[in-house]
Amino acid sequence: MNDSELKLAALRADDVIFKYLPEEDGYPATVISAMNYSVKTGGKRIRPIFMQETYKMFGGKGEVVEPFMAAIEMIHTYSLVHDDLEAMDNDEFRRGRKTTHVIYGEGMAILAGDGLLNLAFETALKAFDVKGADNAGVIKALKLLAEKSGLYGMLGGQACDVDAEQKKRAIDMDELMYIHKNKTGALIEAAMLIGAILAGADDKELEKVDQIALLVGTAFQIEDDILDVEGDASVTGKPVGSDERNNKVTYVTLCGIEEARSDARAMSERAIEVFDSLGRENDFLRELIISMIGRVS
Amino acid sequence: MNDSELKLAALRADDVIFKYLPEEDGYPATVISAMNYSVKTGGKRIRPIFMQETYKMFGGKGEVVEPFMAAIEMIHTYSLVHDDLEAMDNDEFRRGRKTTHVIYGEGMAILAGDGLLNLAFETALKAFDVKGADNAGVIKALKLLAEKSGLYGMLGGQACDVDAEQKKRAIDMDELMYIHKNKTGALIEAAMLIGAILAGADDKELEKVDQIALLVGTAFQIEDDILDVEGDASVTGKPVGSDERNNKVTYVTLCGIEEARSDARAMSERAIEVFDSLGRENDFLRELIISMIGRVS
Repeated sequence: MNDSELKLAALRADDVIFKYLPEEDGYPATVISAMNYSVKTGGKRIRPIFMQETYKMFGGKGEVVEPFMAAIEMIHTYSLVHDDLEAMDNDEFRRGRKTTHVIYGEGMAILAGDGLLNLAFETALKAFDVKGADNAGVIKALKLLAEKSGLYGMLGGQACDVDAEQKKRAIDMDELMYIHKNKTGALIEAAMLIGAILAGADDKELEKVDQIALLVGTAFQIEDDILDVEGDASVTGKPVGSDERNNKVTYVTLCGIEEARSDARAMSERAIEVFDSLGRENDFLRELIISMIGRVS
Repeated sequence: MNDSELKLAALRADDVIFKYLPEEDGYPATVISAMNYSVKTGGKRIRPIFMQETYKMFGGKGEVVEPFMAAIEMIHTYSLVHDDLEAMDNDEFRRGRKTTHVIYGEGMAILAGDGLLNLAFETALKAFDVKGADNAGVIKALKLLAEKSGLYGMLGGQACDVDAEQKKRAIDMDELMYIHKNKTGALIEAAMLIGAILAGADDKELEKVDQIALLVGTAFQIEDDILDVEGDASVTGKPVGSDERNNKVTYVTLCGIEEARSDARAMSERAIEVFDSLGRENDFLRELIISMIGRVS
């Protein structure tokens, strides 16, 4: 899959996501502007794309997936806005543009993140109003979204990471895998599972989708660790060698680069194996998985 | 209504709320501990009490209201945790105890707030699993909770307030009423409306409940402004005269104390009038409304 195909898919996802962004007027116009800036400032829209493609693969045809596509991108965005805050990573730039707190101030950026998390649930709840929506599926999808974003998902992984850094606590392989699985993996899991649930996939299929998503999420994160050592800043989006400078424990520091590379490769191959065993057709999604987790040779 | 009756009601609400708090173990134990500290540190539990009493007044008998009681208190708590942050009001004490960021650090307090907001929705979604729950009512209640907590409710009012302060922008009566209505009023509205919805109140009744909640919320806030000038710090929970020292625009600075007092009284009387016109019995709730908005003579 080449870059222009990925960009086109992101633009199509934008069309869906932007429909659910609030109008910048009324008394709270400043916080709305900060929220919209944070979402519109870009990104690969990997999570909504994964969701929509999984939905299509299981025969989903309606629009019930759209509010959830917007919701998961809002949740991903809020986590970045809060991550970048002075009190957290204190990052001034993301993808070449100033971060939200640099433009709007720390307090307004905190509120913009809160606003996006709240709006995510407000938006996902709109799925009940989509014509022909199956309420039981929407309820199941909502529960999954809430679970995978919170303590037992993304936020849990993030909080564990911040805690270890604050306390300068050495982490072992189990804790590192917990962080990877949750901080990065949980929203990819949610994306694919919600797509499958809304399209009516059965429990056996959901189990396989979950396996694929976890393998993809973990392999992706290990590759990030590898690329931090030997990669290209234009691919990873952060300066090469930043983990080492920050004394960060990564898969590479724990296992060495050779084992990291071979583990990432094994996970990727396993993900494609499970994908193929589903017996469903979606070449675009298959290629997307290969390209996401095939960034190291 | 005397203080000990209010305290007893708060303790009964605690029994419900605490059931939904997470266990402090596993890798994210620190953030869970920060979340639980924030909730357990107390408060009058006015919102869950209002919700439950409204539910009972309309004949509600099941447990479907309980997850929503916990959820609304989690949302109220997250807003206080984020409000108290260094980047916001930088308050070191609340109700005589150290605020969350003072104990756990600014970054962990941001995450604890995020975690509580997320957990609120995760918890409210559990209402679908309560035996005998009416899905349509739960869906309606969830939508209302999301709306009144977010941009078109509490968060909108809070963001407008922060924006005016940051820019040292003078606000007029319209904007002040917008802030009061949303920052303070929206969660009281949500509490009473959700109680009524879950008990199956009809549209006409909901309209009256909404009216009562708005009057109570606004009168309560105006009384806070009055008490700041001439009140007792043990009632308001903040030092007397703090609004003036902070050059804060309040109902009192805009209208004078006499008009503020007579407006608050008129709103309170109107709230009780509408309450009585419902033709429903709940003496406890009626007394609670009177005591909440009867703090100035």
